[in-house]
Amino acid sequence: MPIRLSTEQSDFSERFTAFLGSKREASVDVQDQVAAIIADVRARGDRALIDLSRTFDRVDLEVLGLRVTDAELDAALVSIPADTREALVFAKGRIESHHARQKPTDDSYTDSAGVVLGHRWTSVDAVGLYVPGGTAAYPSSVLMNAVPAQVAGVPRIVMVVPAPDGEIAPLVLAAARLAGVHEVYRVGGAQAVAALAYGTQTIKPVDKIVGPGNAYVAAAKRQVFGKVGIDMVAGPSEVLILADGEANSDWIAADLLAQAEHDTAAQSILITDSPALADAVEKAVEGMLLNLPRAAIASASWRDHGAIILVESLAAAIPLVDRLAPEHLEIHAAAAEDLAAEVRHAGAIFIGAFTPEAIGDYVGGTNHVLPTARSARFSSGLSVLDFMKRTSILKLDADALEKLGPAAVRLAGVERLDAHGRSVSIRTNR
Amino acid sequence: MPIRLSTEQSDFSERFTAFLGSKREASVDVQDQVAAIIADVRARGDRALIDLSRTFDRVDLEVLGLRVTDAELDAALVSIPADTREALVFAKGRIESHHARQKPTDDSYTDSAGVVLGHRWTSVDAVGLYVPGGTAAYPSSVLMNAVPAQVAGVPRIVMVVPAPDGEIAPLVLAAARLAGVHEVYRVGGAQAVAALAYGTQTIKPVDKIVGPGNAYVAAAKRQVFGKVGIDMVAGPSEVLILADGEANSDWIAADLLAQAEHDTAAQSILITDSPALADAVEKAVEGMLLNLPRAAIASASWRDHGAIILVESLAAAIPLVDRLAPEHLEIHAAAAEDLAAEVRHAGAIFIGAFTPEAIGDYVGGTNHVLPTARSARFSSGLSVLDFMKRTSILKLDADALEKLGPAAVRLAGVERLDAHGRSVSIRTNR
Repeated sequence: MPIRLSTEQSDFSERFTAFLGSKREASVDVQDQVAAIIADVRARGDRALIDLSRTFDRVDLEVLGLRVTDAELDAALVSIPADTREALVFAKGRIESHHARQKPTDDSYTDSAGVVLGHRWTSVDAVGLYVPGGTAAYPSSVLMNAVPAQVAGVPRIVMVVPAPDGEIAPLVLAAARLAGVHEVYRVGGAQAVAALAYGTQTIKPVDKIVGPGNAYVAAAKRQVFGKVGIDMVAGPSEVLILADGEANSDWIAADLLAQAEHDTAAQSILITDSPALADAVEKAVEGMLLNLPRAAIASASWRDHGAIILVESLAAAIPLVDRLAPEHLEIHAAAAEDLAAEVRHAGAIFIGAFTPEAIGDYVGGTNHVLPTARSARFSSGLSVLDFMKRTSILKLDADALEKLGPAAVRLAGVERLDAHGRSVSIRTNR
Repeated sequence: MPIRLSTEQSDFSERFTAFLGSKREASVDVQDQVAAIIADVRARGDRALIDLSRTFDRVDLEVLGLRVTDAELDAALVSIPADTREALVFAKGRIESHHARQKPTDDSYTDSAGVVLGHRWTSVDAVGLYVPGGTAAYPSSVLMNAVPAQVAGVPRIVMVVPAPDGEIAPLVLAAARLAGVHEVYRVGGAQAVAALAYGTQTIKPVDKIVGPGNAYVAAAKRQVFGKVGIDMVAGPSEVLILADGEANSDWIAADLLAQAEHDTAAQSILITDSPALADAVEKAVEGMLLNLPRAAIASASWRDHGAIILVESLAAAIPLVDRLAPEHLEIHAAAAEDLAAEVRHAGAIFIGAFTPEAIGDYVGGTNHVLPTARSARFSSGLSVLDFMKRTSILKLDADALEKLGPAAVRLAGVERLDAHGRSVSIRTNR
């Protein structure tokens, strides 16, 4: 049974705060192990990747080869069913056209003092994309990470994916081929992250590493941060559904379970002003759980982390939504648009009953890599901007320097940075 | 004597790579100490801040008060010399008007499938700005961090600054007042970062922490990352000057020293195609070092980390510039604009001889918080975007869902996420 809260409870505020603070993941301390793996890869390069893959993935890379060949990628794309290939092409096209609108524009202008100011955006030179192995190897994640990098114009996109027992899902390789990934290596874990950050004989280093992974991968990304850029370290997924009394309880139940089936640590929350809907959704969830392949996972998630929160009005729910800062927010209500406009903190908003979150996972066109664990308070989903960076530009002539110089010299003086001041005054002869 | 490299050296490639890899900072391991401080602040709140400040800053916050009052801020602004105040106002105005152009725009459009896609930008709710104490308490840094947050529309900007022996530089408080900082607390170190991240009785938690600090502050920011957002962890500052034979050697020497005076770990590099200029600059640096207040620091930086690199042509220098990915790049050359256009990786470019980097530190209008240690390969200087985040928006109606649904159901199927597929098919009855 999920937790039930109501704003009518006298201690609602405390209960809600406790709910906000509840942990969904056991934190595993793998720092030292990961540090040792990184040091090993730095010291021994390919040799370390081969040895570690033999141990962790039971694969002999000396036989199979570290790099997945273009022929293998082509073969994977041909091997998958035609309708799956078409669905991937359809998804890729929609992601691409939406992300193309995110490309930033350069700026350059001359202000009233005659100073030229501006900025120029350029792509990162080389990006590494981590893709988990086994059942978590999702072709949709390959598209969601690689396509924005392509749109950004990244000249070198490298993918690493473990091959447990020698196997990589053909779908993942097919998605990589479709998304225009330039190099694929069959290595995973902290050793793959280390190889991307520091390079080996075979894998040239990249400048930024993105993509989801287990505790080892996450710890490795944190440890190489600074040497290379990283994306957010993602936590378990979550959905918050805001619904009025007219909403369809079966559809809501289906969406809560679509989230819950990801992971026992996933979280599904319903906020509604209708006790009747709350009851109907809870009942519908129980029913649907009876014949869901991943029922064990989904029911554990719903039982341990699910919540139904009753509010007096949906408008009164907005501050709760903002405190939860959900990765995904669905709004099933007559006033969905207006409510969406009031929300400040959410990774993505799915407006109206015909926008199940799963559409955003695959074919909506928006990115499915979104901030989890309340980090939508301060961060955004993956976008083209994550694969670009901005260089600021300043240009003065002698006249402009005469105008700006004195204030700079003054401030350098009070900061006791005399050489700063002199670098200006030597040009203006003041 | 700074290192001298030349592309004519037969082993230039190895030498340049070694130079790129040279470390400028001894890494101090303060992880455990910082973790203990954070745990203490989480457990004891204000009480811990008071005790730790007594120990580290020799200040009694029970007497002085944790919060710097508005009256103190006003008094600080009045207390500084009028021309300094005017220079700060001038700088703030220029930073503000430039950063106003960085405000991102929302997007919403309906595509050919009838899907509404878009995104909306909102500010972070509360930002904490760390300002170092003592001689590194720069009013310019207060402006560079607080003004973009103001422009982003952040409703609550909190500053923390240590008060060693009870003292905070009036200039820093004056800059905070001018920049519209809402709350100022006299606490520093890892304890201040912990207070901002987790809150205490007096300091409400923030959502993101920015600003420079020592090894303790940097480690604390890394440790609270995830609970709150953080900006880049900045390393020692650096400048790269690209100059042709016509450039003014005195001006270049002055700019190299303006960088070198920051810190013995700072780095100043000259790349030129003129051996005569190289010699003249080296001689000019020696001369200027004779009467510089911070000569001890500047000469250590120049001796240990400075470099002069001779190239056959400035065009041939561009790949070296990109590999160095400097925080600051000055170009003193007839073809400065063209050369700037070729550079891919730099935090900021200062074009032409009348644009000393120090202008950008204070009054240019661009931000002086820039990526160091080659991180311009994958990250950008501080901007309004660092204080905002993007919520993506998706809206389908029944028709649009009919069009997109089948591909989503197909992909959910191959990813074995049946509940995902059902959340779509339950609406389309397929």
